[in-house]
Amino acid sequence: MKLNCDMGESFGCWAKGQDSDVMPFIDMANIACGFHASDPLTMDTTVRLAVENTVEIGAHPGYPDLVGFGRRNMHCQLDELEAMLIYQIGALDAICQKYGTEVSYIKPHGAMYNQMMKDKQILSTIMKTVRKVRPLCPLVVMATPNNDIIRTMAHEHGIEVWFEAFSDRAYNDDGYLVPRTMNGSVYHDFTSIRNQICQIMEEGCVTTITGKKLAIDVDTICVHGDGEHAASVCQAAAVMRRSA
Amino acid sequence: MKLNCDMGESFGCWAKGQDSDVMPFIDMANIACGFHASDPLTMDTTVRLAVENTVEIGAHPGYPDLVGFGRRNMHCQLDELEAMLIYQIGALDAICQKYGTEVSYIKPHGAMYNQMMKDKQILSTIMKTVRKVRPLCPLVVMATPNNDIIRTMAHEHGIEVWFEAFSDRAYNDDGYLVPRTMNGSVYHDFTSIRNQICQIMEEGCVTTITGKKLAIDVDTICVHGDGEHAASVCQAAAVMRRSA
Amino acid sequence: MKLNCDMGESFGCWAKGQDSDVMPFIDMANIACGFHASDPLTMDTTVRLAVENTVEIGAHPGYPDLVGFGRRNMHCQLDELEAMLIYQIGALDAICQKYGTEVSYIKPHGAMYNQMMKDKQILSTIMKTVRKVRPLCPLVVMATPNNDIIRTMAHEHGIEVWFEAFSDRAYNDDGYLVPRTMNGSVYHDFTSIRNQICQIMEEGCVTTITGKKLAIDVDTICVHGDGEHAASVCQAAAVMRRSA
Amino acid sequence: MKLNCDMGESFGCWAKGQDSDVMPFIDMANIACGFHASDPLTMDTTVRLAVENTVEIGAHPGYPDLVGFGRRNMHCQLDELEAMLIYQIGALDAICQKYGTEVSYIKPHGAMYNQMMKDKQILSTIMKTVRKVRPLCPLVVMATPNNDIIRTMAHEHGIEVWFEAFSDRAYNDDGYLVPRTMNGSVYHDFTSIRNQICQIMEEGCVTTITGKKLAIDVDTICVHGDGEHAASVCQAAAVMRRSA
Repeated sequence: MKLNCDMGESFGCWAKGQDSDVMPFIDMANIACGFHASDPLTMDTTVRLAVENTVEIGAHPGYPDLVGFGRRNMHCQLDELEAMLIYQIGALDAICQKYGTEVSYIKPHGAMYNQMMKDKQILSTIMKTVRKVRPLCPLVVMATPNNDIIRTMAHEHGIEVWFEAFSDRAYNDDGYLVPRTMNGSVYHDFTSIRNQICQIMEEGCVTTITGKKLAIDVDTICVHGDGEHAASVCQAAAVMRRSA
Repeated sequence: MKLNCDMGESFGCWAKGQDSDVMPFIDMANIACGFHASDPLTMDTTVRLAVENTVEIGAHPGYPDLVGFGRRNMHCQLDELEAMLIYQIGALDAICQKYGTEVSYIKPHGAMYNQMMKDKQILSTIMKTVRKVRPLCPLVVMATPNNDIIRTMAHEHGIEVWFEAFSDRAYNDDGYLVPRTMNGSVYHDFTSIRNQICQIMEEGCVTTITGKKLAIDVDTICVHGDGEHAASVCQAAAVMRRSA
Repeated sequence: MKLNCDMGESFGCWAKGQDSDVMPFIDMANIACGFHASDPLTMDTTVRLAVENTVEIGAHPGYPDLVGFGRRNMHCQLDELEAMLIYQIGALDAICQKYGTEVSYIKPHGAMYNQMMKDKQILSTIMKTVRKVRPLCPLVVMATPNNDIIRTMAHEHGIEVWFEAFSDRAYNDDGYLVPRTMNGSVYHDFTSIRNQICQIMEEGCVTTITGKKLAIDVDTICVHGDGEHAASVCQAAAVMRRSA
Repeated sequence: MKLNCDMGESFGCWAKGQDSDVMPFIDMANIACGFHASDPLTMDTTVRLAVENTVEIGAHPGYPDLVGFGRRNMHCQLDELEAMLIYQIGALDAICQKYGTEVSYIKPHGAMYNQMMKDKQILSTIMKTVRKVRPLCPLVVMATPNNDIIRTMAHEHGIEVWFEAFSDRAYNDDGYLVPRTMNGSVYHDFTSIRNQICQIMEEGCVTTITGKKLAIDVDTICVHGDGEHAASVCQAAAVMRRSA
């Protein structure tokens, strides 16, 4: 059970996240590639930090929307989506090469991630793209009760998928996330986040918003690298993972 | 003696150049990488066109200045220059991988090219960068009477350089280009351009603006992919090269 | 019955449209404001050209998506939509001031225009914004059989609307445009475009794709400033308008 | 003696500065206009905050270089410089109109400011531009022993200038700033900054890096809205100004 975390989300003079505090405790760094956040120099700094901490590097591509941080849906054509994925993966991978490492998985960001989970055409385009240029890189997708459908698609496309759970998001009884617009959808306190990580790691389940225990089939847990408790959550999770 | 040409300089809905008319006649396509021109989908289209025409692909990185087409000096820090070079080379190379090919040389664009020729620190940074991430890719630089200095630098940095002459620029007696601000600095007519290509290919020299013959040590000639005579110049040059 | 046309859609070194050929024949220049196309210097050139031809200037704001030319839906928050409208209107208006003129109407571009016609919340936000900063500027919207609904909304918001028809788009029997994805949705030949303009001007109707005559309540006709027949269509329309 | 401060330098999701803590203590808010920092919504928020605190609003235009925060020289043509100034001033002014106020002065940012102080052609272009579109808005420039030269130029161009001193920069004996590359060029501690403000306000002079007292002819003092002591420095300065 690996901890993944979005890293390298600064942009030019604007700092974001506590990358150097968090990096020692995570396993997988999802590094922004310059379309929704980051820039070449920030990517360089972040890759070096990941390498120094022996953290796996994943490409975290997004829509070309800096001012919206890649969180707004953009209705791109599928051939353009493919091209922008390859562009971003390649850019990050070259920076990895400078440090003697490489991109080892792909996790789309923000609106692109959400659309991938909703729209099979987009998911299929992303899978085909990964197959074309990085066939050995797993694609990180959200764990849901429909893991099997996605696993089958991945198998058909000839790629691997990793399913992720979210450490700070509340789950509905149907195994999907409580929408952000609803009260209680995001955990902000250290204890709730740590408990959810602990439960996923040790019991393979989450407690839903109605109090039910729900089994969840997960390869990796997403933690956050900004916010008040970022470093302490990541540290606590790292401790749990080692003892697990 | 190879013909190189800037390609893939469209951006989004804005077309530029006559890439499909010119590509059949050139040997090396300098493909823009999204910072001064091009976008992921344009790069994809351009790489495919190059592959279909068995044209070598070079990365043509520039400063992050779309509105200025990378022609304005930008005083970037050297570590940022390195990072933006690696980013652009990697992005293009991944698109090449999709088509089963790769970036085979590097030629900086516009203001970055000019600053590289003027400022040894920038040239050295570019050479180091090429050595770090694409050590087998030659760097294309301008042929001048000081080729030896650059050749020595390249040797020290462990990379190869290719020297290029310009098909449509007038030369001074000192072997440097007549500045664009002066009358007669740029040839616009088919005959002058063809003659200069012919003279470089067959005699290894140019006729300077004062009428002197000047030997010029050149690996490749740069032709232009836009303008009235683009395709006919490239075709004529291709014919000469074959018969040479 | 005025002719309106999108103008100033070049960007940096990339030219688009035949502005200087078309400007003499139109009444209203919808000038791009730098978010989906144009840049400050292009806007300056375009405003000067409009002033020289005594053409009314309208702000043509779009989504911040140069590479997509503002044609992709972007799900912006309403307060951000308002702010980006005001920003763009103000930028263009200041350039107008330099030439002793001013923005005299507002016409959203591309995806923003389409979303305005589909989504009452977006239309209402745009109307409120116009009211706040340019209450005397009419908002240009698409003429449909539901003009009255929009006219009522505009009245409630305290602004004026102008309805426009399209010279080169086929209409369905319901008075809406035939979607671009269908055959015959766009007229490319001079005669069809001229005929549609003529019919709207002289008879106040269009012939739908099934051959029916349909009355259409229109203040202005949108013609296109690029394409093969741009200048000749605009000239023909200008002649009809004068004789009408 | 007014306190001016750069405000509204956030961008999208990236926060920068402590605008709401600092705004109550300053007189003039230099608001970024979207080219080197800020975006339409950030500008809206910042203008509202300024209005709530009865702070004068100045346009703070910069070069179109977000990733470099407008701090890198860009060699723009003079007509483009004029157009980008007018664009940014107009964009901010329209947002001011929404809140019933207006841009009341102009202060270029970063590299544009530095180039204006070094290059009379650029200074002259900026003055002409202000005259064309906001003739009543003073231009803020750096106070130096050459104030008279600039004052004369401003007079010839028909505009007003305001001279500013820097609260946290060390001065050489020649009345110019100690370059940032030298030790001691920037004051980081509360006491040094407060003392320099106090000395400028009460005695009209600064203590240079060699310990000499140097008279300085100043209309406004620039304080910084980010950094550890931002709010307390501004508060202290506000107290001094009131008692002065």
